[in-house]
Amino acid sequence: MIEAMQSRLEVEDLSRSVAEVQRLLGDAERLPELRRRLDGLHPADIAYVLEALPHEERLAVWDLVKADRDGDILVEVSDAVRESLIASMDSAELIAAAETLEADELADIAPDLPPDVIEEVVQSLPAEERERLRAALSYPEGSVGALMDFDHVAVREDVSLEAATRYLRRLDELPDHTDQLFVVDREQRLRGTLPLGRLIVSDLDLEVARVMIPENVKLYPEDAAEDAASAFERYDLVSAPVVDASGRLVGRLTVDAVVDYIRQRSAESQLAEAGLQHEEDVFAPVLDSFKNRWAWLAVNLVTAFVASRVIGLFEDSIAQLVALAALMPIVAGIGGNSGNQTMTMIVRALALGQIQKSYWTKLLYKEIGVALLNGVVWGTLLGALAYLFYGSVALGGVMALAMILNLVLAASMGVAIPWIRARRGRDPAQGSSVLITACTDSGGFFIFLGLATIFLV
Amino acid sequence: MIEAMQSRLEVEDLSRSVAEVQRLLGDAERLPELRRRLDGLHPADIAYVLEALPHEERLAVWDLVKADRDGDILVEVSDAVRESLIASMDSAELIAAAETLEADELADIAPDLPPDVIEEVVQSLPAEERERLRAALSYPEGSVGALMDFDHVAVREDVSLEAATRYLRRLDELPDHTDQLFVVDREQRLRGTLPLGRLIVSDLDLEVARVMIPENVKLYPEDAAEDAASAFERYDLVSAPVVDASGRLVGRLTVDAVVDYIRQRSAESQLAEAGLQHEEDVFAPVLDSFKNRWAWLAVNLVTAFVASRVIGLFEDSIAQLVALAALMPIVAGIGGNSGNQTMTMIVRALALGQIQKSYWTKLLYKEIGVALLNGVVWGTLLGALAYLFYGSVALGGVMALAMILNLVLAASMGVAIPWIRARRGRDPAQGSSVLITACTDSGGFFIFLGLATIFLV
Repeated sequence: MIEAMQSRLEVEDLSRSVAEVQRLLGDAERLPELRRRLDGLHPADIAYVLEALPHEERLAVWDLVKADRDGDILVEVSDAVRESLIASMDSAELIAAAETLEADELADIAPDLPPDVIEEVVQSLPAEERERLRAALSYPEGSVGALMDFDHVAVREDVSLEAATRYLRRLDELPDHTDQLFVVDREQRLRGTLPLGRLIVSDLDLEVARVMIPENVKLYPEDAAEDAASAFERYDLVSAPVVDASGRLVGRLTVDAVVDYIRQRSAESQLAEAGLQHEEDVFAPVLDSFKNRWAWLAVNLVTAFVASRVIGLFEDSIAQLVALAALMPIVAGIGGNSGNQTMTMIVRALALGQIQKSYWTKLLYKEIGVALLNGVVWGTLLGALAYLFYGSVALGGVMALAMILNLVLAASMGVAIPWIRARRGRDPAQGSSVLITACTDSGGFFIFLGLATIFLV
Repeated sequence: MIEAMQSRLEVEDLSRSVAEVQRLLGDAERLPELRRRLDGLHPADIAYVLEALPHEERLAVWDLVKADRDGDILVEVSDAVRESLIASMDSAELIAAAETLEADELADIAPDLPPDVIEEVVQSLPAEERERLRAALSYPEGSVGALMDFDHVAVREDVSLEAATRYLRRLDELPDHTDQLFVVDREQRLRGTLPLGRLIVSDLDLEVARVMIPENVKLYPEDAAEDAASAFERYDLVSAPVVDASGRLVGRLTVDAVVDYIRQRSAESQLAEAGLQHEEDVFAPVLDSFKNRWAWLAVNLVTAFVASRVIGLFEDSIAQLVALAALMPIVAGIGGNSGNQTMTMIVRALALGQIQKSYWTKLLYKEIGVALLNGVVWGTLLGALAYLFYGSVALGGVMALAMILNLVLAASMGVAIPWIRARRGRDPAQGSSVLITACTDSGGFFIFLGLATIFLV
């Protein structure tokens, strides 16, 4: 739906408008003015403002928003903020908000709604919409089915462009992101697509089948969203038809859903790398934040504890040569950093599907080559520093050798961990950073202290 | 341009087709078949295949690709792979390839071309295109001007839809991603936009000015690409007009350029976090990889060395109580992990523009609250473990207290580092992870060993 009536904010105004909302909130007399201003904002902008406000201010603004826009805004806000808004609403409000949404939007927020609300809303839907909602909910997260909508316009292949245009005029308005019509046969099987641009510039007497593009990207609901996103990116698509196994048109995927998906995935992988389980509301209560973060800290604790026990094995050596305690974290740290470099590059290439089976060995050799070069450069430097500080050539030599060996270990693990995870069909990114750091910490301590025990003590 | 003739690959076929290319490459007699297959591929798919092949195979395939498609493919490949392809071409080939491109595409690959090639190509351009190229090159990376193209269709506000449609028919084909026409006055100033969907469903006798959307998103070439991307995401745009300071239409931004930008930015931030300076070709020579990675390893080396010197300060204490050496990495490691969690969340919120000036103190208190909770939970657990292993209550107590203090330090730094960087107008993400780990390592060692020296030794 084209929203001509609502003004859209220039890019740089958004943050200013949050500050404005804050100011108006503080002054009870100006609440009607605030309400008027909120009414003038696009739902996505209200979502933005809500996300940027702490809990109490957020709920105060939420109360001021017209109830008939609640649904649109709930679709736009982040998962974490949606939870806090839904928690503040009663069943009647939620049902009213949900009823303003289309099936695919409803499916997006359904996981956050109480079961009785969903039940009630489903009852009130017309049969076709209910079927669509059921379909949308049946596809797993991360599939094309979960992202698609049902707003496509289909025309038959055997009609003239003139007839197709007459049909469109009766619709009054085309759904958002209609850059092309989907062409189907009598059985609703997809035959091709007809870009609006072609419809406009072509002779109206021609038959749709003559003007359409017969061969083009089509998707299946079971396709991975990631693959669909990559097709949108490679072929610069605005929309693509989604068909079932028998080739019947069931929905469409549009670029706005793809953009949201890409953003969210990149956010998730960034958060996961830092050890957060979900997107976190910046203003979440302390306990919620704790719950979001404890799991990875616990994992980290276990790996740190293992590394600590490795050091424990060599306490006698450290007691005899206390310099080892000061030097060992350097060996472990550089190894972790270097291993993460290797792994990040490989995980990215894997995600882009760029590593063929036959190239893994080649990659491993290459990474070991980089590790040896790094090891010689930094190992020599650090060995020299160790010699300068502690006056022992042997200690410098052990330092340099340990550095080289730990970097080779890091490179091997940086290739092996994503390889193993990918072969097992797991996401190679998830938790890889923790795993590799665990290897290079424990491994680095073991190599350095082991060599020191052999050669120095 | 709509490319009906080139078949597009189903999502899951791409990786298979790389394997296919590999197989055909191995057999000299089947090279003509390989050439035919490559001719049938979309430029973006050829780019994909090239990126997935090691250096020699890549150049062999590159030789087989028809020369008139070189330009399109160079635009599609990643920066790292583009360099390797351009290095294999002579000036004449490069000029021929560059001449097939439009001004905005040319601007994208210009940084990788030798100066004499650019010179030659610029000479051969018609005046208008030359001016466009100059404009496109004049905007800094990361601005709307650097992403925009010049392929918009503009109509005058005072003509009828009928006349507008007649004008469009004369164009034969509309530029890609034309979801709307831009409406201008006699001075080329932007007056509004006319979605194709509206044009199709509206009465052709109406004037453009009556049907257009007068108020809508418009961008300036100087706007940050990040802000424009956020507007595309919030308002679900396919295209947006770009105007100069006097409101004259100068170009347009399309969603495909925005998607590429988002992907690239997310890749860059992922790579930067792991300490890679640029996107790296998986099959890059060892020396290229070393160059891409050494800078961050050097930074890491310096911070690790500082941490090592902090430990050096307490060598006497460690010599007396060697358990300290085994326990200190735990305190440092958990602090680093926890600080990274805090910082990642704040950097993300900052990038989304969600943190108002007035909320920083609130945030700091909240994060210190989370840190105290974490500190009590994990500190107690680790203190108990330390007691179990070393039988000293005092050691357990020092461990727990050090843990709490280092987590509070981590939380404070996790808020302070992005805050300071943002205030200075720097990218808060860049290198933050290294900075915070440096604080929590040196800080963690100092706190733990310091407390131990006071209470235990």
